[in-house]
Amino acid sequence: MTSSDGYEAAYQGEPGAYSEEAAWALSGAGAQLLPCPTLGAMFDAVASGRARRAVLPIENTLAGTVPRAYELLTDRGLAAIGETRVQIDHVLVGHPGASPAALRRVLSHPVALDQCRRFFAAHPHIEPVPAFDTAGAVSLVMEGGDAGTAAIASRRAATLHAAAVLAEHIQDHAENWTRFLLLAPAAPAAGVEGTHAIVAFTLPHEPGALANVLQALAARRANITKIESRPIEGQPFEYAFLLEIDRDPAGPPFTEILPDVAPMTIGLSVLGAY
Amino acid sequence: MTSSDGYEAAYQGEPGAYSEEAAWALSGAGAQLLPCPTLGAMFDAVASGRARRAVLPIENTLAGTVPRAYELLTDRGLAAIGETRVQIDHVLVGHPGASPAALRRVLSHPVALDQCRRFFAAHPHIEPVPAFDTAGAVSLVMEGGDAGTAAIASRRAATLHAAAVLAEHIQDHAENWTRFLLLAPAAPAAGVEGTHAIVAFTLPHEPGALANVLQALAARRANITKIESRPIEGQPFEYAFLLEIDRDPAGPPFTEILPDVAPMTIGLSVLGAY
Repeated sequence: MTSSDGYEAAYQGEPGAYSEEAAWALSGAGAQLLPCPTLGAMFDAVASGRARRAVLPIENTLAGTVPRAYELLTDRGLAAIGETRVQIDHVLVGHPGASPAALRRVLSHPVALDQCRRFFAAHPHIEPVPAFDTAGAVSLVMEGGDAGTAAIASRRAATLHAAAVLAEHIQDHAENWTRFLLLAPAAPAAGVEGTHAIVAFTLPHEPGALANVLQALAARRANITKIESRPIEGQPFEYAFLLEIDRDPAGPPFTEILPDVAPMTIGLSVLGAY
Repeated sequence: MTSSDGYEAAYQGEPGAYSEEAAWALSGAGAQLLPCPTLGAMFDAVASGRARRAVLPIENTLAGTVPRAYELLTDRGLAAIGETRVQIDHVLVGHPGASPAALRRVLSHPVALDQCRRFFAAHPHIEPVPAFDTAGAVSLVMEGGDAGTAAIASRRAATLHAAAVLAEHIQDHAENWTRFLLLAPAAPAAGVEGTHAIVAFTLPHEPGALANVLQALAARRANITKIESRPIEGQPFEYAFLLEIDRDPAGPPFTEILPDVAPMTIGLSVLGAY
């Protein structure tokens, strides 16, 4: 792979997607980006060398953790090397001249539809219709040529498709952010400088096992910023743990913290550090 | 409200949905059930007295926690009083006589589509199309009358719509289970008998605050079966915690455990106990 003939970063969705905005924030405004239909295709693009990096949505303030995001990060051998947050600000996108009162169907990603529940409650004549992504919904609407159909997406998606913005800020909550991780094929390395780490492990079936791990981290001035237990595939309702950790820049580095904690877990792996 | 003229339980989806199967497991096989188009409508049905109880999908072994499930449980004032697990076994449902080789589109809930990635990889000519629920996708396919369109759903959904099963067991992993909670409008009460509790709280910004809570639970022979930090709406990337706890039947009851732990948290609330 040479980076000169490849893409700088892959993202899921179409041009105008919020993920594209995150990719530019993480890769520079002029970077060549590769849109991918699914998260899996995005990981494939990095594995094959078509793209140097990938941009993975990990959690949203309203919808919570993105389903399968940590699972893909665990399974597909990429490491998180950075992150950014993008404010989600949905507009209603339709055909120029279309009247919101005459709309019958509005397409978008199910999470975006769910973030605009008040809009649909106030317009009961409009049917929400799921689509794979926000910007792709705008494509479908504009190709379809039906003025009774609109989409929920970003303002940029509207501009890119020469579509009209029929209503602004239609999400229920103004504070709507998604956090994205920048992924690289490098082996995850918790260097001396990094202050954030993402780790996964399972625990022995002993009372207090998780408490002991967290106690050990606290004693090393490392703070949990996110914790989740995750079902283990093929072992229904046994759990793996996923932790995101901020360390004190004046405290011990992760190169000391993680080797201290690893023996208290089963198979601690570092999914990212930056 | 009298239960004699109401529904025993509300569930999200249409007849033939996996949620309907869970509702029967939790309410008895002859129970009158109310299908609801969305999770929100299901909570409304209990609030208005139309249904006595509701059945909430909470997590799946492959897809993880159901987005918004804990949020609804927290916000809508119902309490979990029981749970069940349903094995998810997807079949490909289409028009009688349809050939899988001639299919062009397959509709289902996005989570179900995602659980059948190997099927779509092996049939690249078939486009996966998102729908609001599995059984609803079967309705759409059978009403549509197009033999090139099929759905992914349960075997029961196929039977109910006099549709044909074109392929069986098409999910990637045989061990595919969803856990459902039974919800009632009763105030959540952690009685002396219950051995499982679902609690939510936030924590002071102090190092080790979560470790201390888990340590206190372990000392009382209470074991964490699930833990999640959840973003707090309107306070981006501040976190609330959600814990599911099994206690030792021979140890202290939740009526002792929870009052001991509550002062270590901010606003501990009991979302369910059974």
